[in-house]
Amino acid sequence: MLTFSDGVFAIAMTLLVVGIVVPTLMDGGDEGELLEAFNDLVPEVTSFFISFAVIGRYWVAHHQFFRLVRAMDYGLVRTNLVYLAFIAFLPFPTALLGDYFENAVSVATYALAIAILSGLEVLLFRHAHRAGLLVREMPERVYRWGVLASLLPVAFFLLSVPVAFLSTVLAVVVWFLPVPAQVVLNRRRPLEAADWF
Amino acid sequence: MLTFSDGVFAIAMTLLVVGIVVPTLMDGGDEGELLEAFNDLVPEVTSFFISFAVIGRYWVAHHQFFRLVRAMDYGLVRTNLVYLAFIAFLPFPTALLGDYFENAVSVATYALAIAILSGLEVLLFRHAHRAGLLVREMPERVYRWGVLASLLPVAFFLLSVPVAFLSTVLAVVVWFLPVPAQVVLNRRRPLEAADWF
Amino acid sequence: MLTFSDGVFAIAMTLLVVGIVVPTLMDGGDEGELLEAFNDLVPEVTSFFISFAVIGRYWVAHHQFFRLVRAMDYGLVRTNLVYLAFIAFLPFPTALLGDYFENAVSVATYALAIAILSGLEVLLFRHAHRAGLLVREMPERVYRWGVLASLLPVAFFLLSVPVAFLSTVLAVVVWFLPVPAQVVLNRRRPLEAADWF
Amino acid sequence: MLTFSDGVFAIAMTLLVVGIVVPTLMDGGDEGELLEAFNDLVPEVTSFFISFAVIGRYWVAHHQFFRLVRAMDYGLVRTNLVYLAFIAFLPFPTALLGDYFENAVSVATYALAIAILSGLEVLLFRHAHRAGLLVREMPERVYRWGVLASLLPVAFFLLSVPVAFLSTVLAVVVWFLPVPAQVVLNRRRPLEAADWF
Repeated sequence: MLTFSDGVFAIAMTLLVVGIVVPTLMDGGDEGELLEAFNDLVPEVTSFFISFAVIGRYWVAHHQFFRLVRAMDYGLVRTNLVYLAFIAFLPFPTALLGDYFENAVSVATYALAIAILSGLEVLLFRHAHRAGLLVREMPERVYRWGVLASLLPVAFFLLSVPVAFLSTVLAVVVWFLPVPAQVVLNRRRPLEAADWF
Repeated sequence: MLTFSDGVFAIAMTLLVVGIVVPTLMDGGDEGELLEAFNDLVPEVTSFFISFAVIGRYWVAHHQFFRLVRAMDYGLVRTNLVYLAFIAFLPFPTALLGDYFENAVSVATYALAIAILSGLEVLLFRHAHRAGLLVREMPERVYRWGVLASLLPVAFFLLSVPVAFLSTVLAVVVWFLPVPAQVVLNRRRPLEAADWF
Repeated sequence: MLTFSDGVFAIAMTLLVVGIVVPTLMDGGDEGELLEAFNDLVPEVTSFFISFAVIGRYWVAHHQFFRLVRAMDYGLVRTNLVYLAFIAFLPFPTALLGDYFENAVSVATYALAIAILSGLEVLLFRHAHRAGLLVREMPERVYRWGVLASLLPVAFFLLSVPVAFLSTVLAVVVWFLPVPAQVVLNRRRPLEAADWF
Repeated sequence: MLTFSDGVFAIAMTLLVVGIVVPTLMDGGDEGELLEAFNDLVPEVTSFFISFAVIGRYWVAHHQFFRLVRAMDYGLVRTNLVYLAFIAFLPFPTALLGDYFENAVSVATYALAIAILSGLEVLLFRHAHRAGLLVREMPERVYRWGVLASLLPVAFFLLSVPVAFLSTVLAVVVWFLPVPAQVVLNRRRPLEAADWF
């Protein structure tokens, strides 16, 4: 399961480079012309690196989660496949955002994709806990705190979808609110959570 | 063999995202225009997720099968390569179906591809049983029941090929008949089969 | 090294499916039109399956060889990288052959690519033997017979390059001559070779 | 981590073959015409093989480095992800160089990409040393010599960026200066370094 997941992550992260096409210049070789052509490539290059960073962050979280998992059942395999489908799909909303950064529809599409992915992380965690697949029994308080922390990005990214149609800048601000919210939540973190996350 | 198979599965499942191209708008940025452009992407996005689900289902079945296999011979390697070739090919008929859902030729092409893949699963199973490559000796009754169950999708998808030229809707209905047929077959399932599947 | 090699093999085998593009029909949906469009796809589909079969054959040979290898040195790593570069390149001459089957240049290009790949297999074998990287000491007679057998496809595919410019059909006939030549060679096979190949 | 890294390397090395498209001839089949069309493919084929060689060299160095590493922390994972992003990106500057070999901008872009990649190698090495992740304690003298040797390509490739705008030929000459510089540096190599590199 993990080598297969790693494959999907690696391909999804690398594939976007195909979209960065070498520009064709009229007369082969002027420096100014090539620099100008680079301007058109900025969104592709930017979304390649953003996509790599975002999928990379999910890859790290995925590995951290599966280190806590002791066994698989078909429920976990199925949820993980749905999760991987959205990982593989992520390059599209990222490229869309790169091209139409001030368009509410593309901002909302990206926010929705991230909310779904983070929501699937919560489902994977919940299933592993309930089906007893974790390396050891997780105390209920730790579990509830973990779910709450995982729901933060889901909530804020969902919230940013309607916000995008008011102001795309405001929507992007909402994307960063999970960071301070996490700081607040950390104050209520149960002591035993340190053994888990 | 399994890491290589996992690679082919992962690539085939992820590659289709390349076909989902970010639309180019006339004047960069109108929300309505982008939503309209999304309409043209519906078949690509749909076939990406369907393809992921279908190949994912074969991946799960492939792993379940290879957990029963104790050793490989060149016959199994060869059949598995043919099987993987059709896995890698599957994105094409899926995309075709996404674009021409009411066209009998594309419905028939897809049905044929699925019938071949399911048929190759039967061949892998038969070869592993006959060449003694399974983890332990499978009772003949269990084996015959397993082959019969595996032949259900082959039979119905083959049947749907001529049906498609009468009515594409009827052909798609035939694709779901293996589910009730399996329920009927389960009543005749030998007791020992529980240890295997 | 082997997981990396498996990755290159899997990608090279699967990538060609990208070249099989769903045709765009004038008015969405006529069966006859779609069947006609399939005609144009025949070379792409054919070269996808041929390429999968040819690279699959090299993958099997590569695994058989590395089962005889006990350790790696940088000479073997380097030769293997050159070998993998030609594996990754192979889809191009295969697709070329699919499109221009009666063109001497494309027949010669394909024959040259196969000759180089088979030649690199000989180099890998020679290096592993001379640097003492095989699982156990291979008797000199067995080694010489193995090299001779490996050189058969190299010789015939190189020979077919000039032949292609006389007749492309004759060149393809030459490609199959290693099979009877191998039968002749098998009569002179040393007894101990059975423990190795 | 290593199977994931291997995946990114394998995909980045193989993907460029997609850029080598089979030429479409006016009338299907003239040898002269195909040979002429090959001329246009020379930059693509050249950059495929150069890219494979360059990424292959980084792959070997990456494996040599990780053989010295005993454990991972999140700092190393993060730096490694940034490093892999540039590996995945490398096919673009390589293809650019293939197409516009005498253009100072493309020469400078390529030199910058290589300088960044080699710089990230230094950062990986420094982090592993400082965080105590190496298989055993590395003597300070050996570490300093290792950093100096790793900085050689960084320095010369950075230097070649401004040089490219004077003369692209001179810039390429600068790319080869790390080789003699390494020979000079090897004279000052501490004795204990032999146990490490």
